[in-house]
Amino acid sequence: VTYRFAAATRRDARSLARAIALEQTVEIPAAAVPPRLNHLIVGHVDRVRGRGAAWTAVISYEPRMNGGELPQLLNLLFGNISLLTGVRIENLDLPPSVLRTFPGPQFGISGLRAVCGVTSRRPLLSASAKPVGLSARELAAICGRFARGGVDIVKDDHSLSDQHWARVRERVVRCQEAVQQANAATGSSAAFFPNLNAPVDQLDERIGILRDAGCRGALLSPMILGLDTVRSLAERSGLAFLAHPMFAGSFFGARHGIAPAVLLGVIYRLIGADGVIYPNAGGRFPAWSERACQELNLRLRAPLGRHQPAMPVAGGGVNADRVRYWNRRYGPDIMYLIGSSFYVQRDLEGAARRVADALRFS
Amino acid sequence: VTYRFAAATRRDARSLARAIALEQTVEIPAAAVPPRLNHLIVGHVDRVRGRGAAWTAVISYEPRMNGGELPQLLNLLFGNISLLTGVRIENLDLPPSVLRTFPGPQFGISGLRAVCGVTSRRPLLSASAKPVGLSARELAAICGRFARGGVDIVKDDHSLSDQHWARVRERVVRCQEAVQQANAATGSSAAFFPNLNAPVDQLDERIGILRDAGCRGALLSPMILGLDTVRSLAERSGLAFLAHPMFAGSFFGARHGIAPAVLLGVIYRLIGADGVIYPNAGGRFPAWSERACQELNLRLRAPLGRHQPAMPVAGGGVNADRVRYWNRRYGPDIMYLIGSSFYVQRDLEGAARRVADALRFS
Repeated sequence: VTYRFAAATRRDARSLARAIALEQTVEIPAAAVPPRLNHLIVGHVDRVRGRGAAWTAVISYEPRMNGGELPQLLNLLFGNISLLTGVRIENLDLPPSVLRTFPGPQFGISGLRAVCGVTSRRPLLSASAKPVGLSARELAAICGRFARGGVDIVKDDHSLSDQHWARVRERVVRCQEAVQQANAATGSSAAFFPNLNAPVDQLDERIGILRDAGCRGALLSPMILGLDTVRSLAERSGLAFLAHPMFAGSFFGARHGIAPAVLLGVIYRLIGADGVIYPNAGGRFPAWSERACQELNLRLRAPLGRHQPAMPVAGGGVNADRVRYWNRRYGPDIMYLIGSSFYVQRDLEGAARRVADALRFS
Repeated sequence: VTYRFAAATRRDARSLARAIALEQTVEIPAAAVPPRLNHLIVGHVDRVRGRGAAWTAVISYEPRMNGGELPQLLNLLFGNISLLTGVRIENLDLPPSVLRTFPGPQFGISGLRAVCGVTSRRPLLSASAKPVGLSARELAAICGRFARGGVDIVKDDHSLSDQHWARVRERVVRCQEAVQQANAATGSSAAFFPNLNAPVDQLDERIGILRDAGCRGALLSPMILGLDTVRSLAERSGLAFLAHPMFAGSFFGARHGIAPAVLLGVIYRLIGADGVIYPNAGGRFPAWSERACQELNLRLRAPLGRHQPAMPVAGGGVNADRVRYWNRRYGPDIMYLIGSSFYVQRDLEGAARRVADALRFS
């Protein structure tokens, strides 16, 4: 694990690195550690580098410390030190024995393309049915317009749960039907991904509703459902997952937390996200730079044990007119999630078609 | 919800408040919101106050927006805006219809005292068996020493999971036995709380191990297991829970995130934490001020619908010699979780007894 932090001198930086290595493992002062555990259990400070006030330390942990369990791995990486200020995980290099314990993407980039019948290596287009407060019929009509306009994956807005304006069972059935009817009319194979952020004791029932309706995937939020809940769902649900970053933003502090390329790029992928949504640069979330987005794109696609690459999904205010610009930068293995920029155009089908055509013929 | 943020002028502050109210609900620009949803669904900015660069906005949301589901409530409060910078939830005032949907503490302050046989209204003492890497026998011996020394709740260190040095089944049985033997010898009623941070698909099995061993409670981490997973466990497990703040620290930024009094004081309590561990002021986590700790103490004990108060648990480097000091400030409804300060004294039983006596006769 590479941790970044501030320190006044090399001595201070070494001292803080050693404090992290103790805190994250034995959680007692070095003097009280049983000698035989010093090399086995206490984190090992491999390297401390930096100058001025900016330092990084690489700390290695015994792989067996996580016991093959994600909850303990998260604790090992950032449990107690999350309560400090100014410590940020910049990089994470997991050994094969740990990588193997995760499901990773069950569909991945190629599987997501297959789910929506895309045979060429082109960017995918996604759009959300919203806003919450509409009836199931109204949301289904929106899904149909997007599907007819050439959207590949029409998804629920992440704020649609089981509110009484559009209960989940009716909503899923109607939206899926609308997308299927559009497919029949246009000859394409758009997919509908409902929101699966349900109470944990209702997840199996919700998955049943999705399966019965014929849905092939879903939207979910690892930080809200629990990262290990998503790991479990990826292993047993048979659904493709788009992971939403909602409620995760506090981790992405410039000085404290976990770099997006690690939390979204490595951990979300390991727990089974087939696509990972992030707020694209130039959108409504100004802290997200193009560089951070590119790092995340690269990390999601990079080799990671035997796991499949996951699809980066650029959202959070992507302007329909700018898709060609991003295309040149991000390449073909990308999905664009467009929301507001479609809705302000009123004609959802026409707005979607202009972008869909640009992606098909770019 | 009271959000705090920076803004240059009152106009900017109103504009940001309105942007939050839209982002957290309809997630489309105001011009695209169907008119009939404007008052029902879009968050209502009740009040914007401040001067200079520091502003707060109180925003009300339609209670039915959460559909009675915690995942959607978390999203409503801080889902997408977690991805901004410089927005902090300072206060949360939930209506009775929403409060009712949560289990709240099943044991609470009085129930925790009952679990460890404490009949007077005095502070409780807790200590952790550690470090990870010891065998189950060694950890059990430590549990026995703490129990003989008068610790009320002996708990697993939060880094103990199912590592091969001390597998969970053997460890729970041995540690519980050691505490029971100490109780038989001293005539007290110390309780042993194992760590329940297990993979979600093993939680029921782990709860079975705890119940079979006779444990009345457990340690868990809501941010790692998932907040809704803890809500579900509180409703069905019959165990008392100490909630650990590990992995939650990124939320507690000074400018961005959720105030500890809200996340730990309201939300952790609502999902069923009977005791809430936090890093006490003056310990290893310097960002935690005495004022923040007091606010959290007060919030955990304050009226909250019909829910019981939860026990504040001051940890993270409480010095055994300073317990009298904190006692004068925190009053009797508090638990002290002491770790390093015991371990550096080597004689765990004697170290614990000095603090236990101070709490019994203070």
